[in-house]
Amino acid sequence: MLTKQTVKFTKSLQNKKFRRLYNQFIIEGEKSVLEVLSSDFKIQKLLVTSYFHAKYKELLAPFSGIIELAGDTELDSIGSLQSNDAAIAVCAVNEVLLPETIKGEWVIALDNINDPGNLGTIIRIADWYGISKIICSEDTADFYNPKVINASKGSFLRVKVHYTDLSAFLKQQRVSVYGADLHGENIHTASFKEVGILVMGNEAHGISEGVKACITQMLTIPRFGQAESLNVGIATAICCDRIKSAQSV
Amino acid sequence: MLTKQTVKFTKSLQNKKFRRLYNQFIIEGEKSVLEVLSSDFKIQKLLVTSYFHAKYKELLAPFSGIIELAGDTELDSIGSLQSNDAAIAVCAVNEVLLPETIKGEWVIALDNINDPGNLGTIIRIADWYGISKIICSEDTADFYNPKVINASKGSFLRVKVHYTDLSAFLKQQRVSVYGADLHGENIHTASFKEVGILVMGNEAHGISEGVKACITQMLTIPRFGQAESLNVGIATAICCDRIKSAQSV
Repeated sequence: MLTKQTVKFTKSLQNKKFRRLYNQFIIEGEKSVLEVLSSDFKIQKLLVTSYFHAKYKELLAPFSGIIELAGDTELDSIGSLQSNDAAIAVCAVNEVLLPETIKGEWVIALDNINDPGNLGTIIRIADWYGISKIICSEDTADFYNPKVINASKGSFLRVKVHYTDLSAFLKQQRVSVYGADLHGENIHTASFKEVGILVMGNEAHGISEGVKACITQMLTIPRFGQAESLNVGIATAICCDRIKSAQSV
Repeated sequence: MLTKQTVKFTKSLQNKKFRRLYNQFIIEGEKSVLEVLSSDFKIQKLLVTSYFHAKYKELLAPFSGIIELAGDTELDSIGSLQSNDAAIAVCAVNEVLLPETIKGEWVIALDNINDPGNLGTIIRIADWYGISKIICSEDTADFYNPKVINASKGSFLRVKVHYTDLSAFLKQQRVSVYGADLHGENIHTASFKEVGILVMGNEAHGISEGVKACITQMLTIPRFGQAESLNVGIATAICCDRIKSAQSV
């Protein structure tokens, strides 16, 4: 059984206000917690069920001082997962320094992506396509939201996510800035520079006016049928697939 | 206020057993219900808030005999949406006849896609790429699950979804059958026939052995980074984008 204090504190980290206050966040579930054990993230506390504890005894040995044992179903009500029979890691927020200028690589920029699931999905896509940095507008969903961490399927460990005034940041850049919307050049026939920034906009309103002004080339994914739009995660994946395949041919 | 009977009946349609029993299902939310009003689906009952009723008075006039007025927040607890201040339509299940053989078009086949959200997303992608039929294994998520309908963002109206013994169906086909997995030909350099079937497999286990035996060409989306996998909806979108752009160049 966990102490009342541990339960209350861990629950509070579902809320951005408390994540900011304590500079801590949670990682949930067997797979993600296992991955974080061998990562750079500094683990402050490990809440584990007896199942998880018995299964990974050796891996957990170095953490014995910060382990608290939880009842079999106790983690279900503390985290954001529907059920969690394994573990929750409480970690310290990593300070990541925003690079001043983008050089020698492709990065993704997100302009007000609201849905935590979409942000997590985009982190996973970035990781698949070897993109190691995502630059977000201040109003994009919080990286440390448990729903973002869960949707990233472990990729949050490898992709750095930065928050800044996006249009101010883009104005300083010397690389090409590509944006995706419904009225741009056909992405199937567009050509891409070796480095650049791909900007994806808000789920409902697309790229904001301020950020649009920084875009050097607008791209469109051609529609062959009748759906009104594509989900922003899907659109990001298609853009990354086109950009990366153009580099490798 | 809705009657107890209406509440109980509508709630029961969240459950596949009752959808099968009554041959009815629900469509939820302002946008989807508006779309279904002008579709082929036969509406049995319309549960509407006074807000929705006042806003769409003229559109709703032909349905006056089957409208029931709901309290402002009453629909929240009846459907699957977190909140619904508009409407729920109870519709009759459409019988869709499975075509014996696929001719003259691309179709998608799904082998045990479990997650209703993934099925809904794939329906939306099919609609974007002008693919009008999806053939599913019997163990794929139920098309009439409210989560599928919601995730399809209206595309359930235009894409026909069939359920059958998938490997038996594929064996009868004379067109090329393409499958997506981690060990196939690079999709960036593959060539595609003008018609064909694209098979996508289960979220955790990929394409089953029986279905694999029917595949004429396996495709892979190249990975440039370290993520373990792509979500099946994302992978479907990338495959469709490649297939459809190859036809149109």
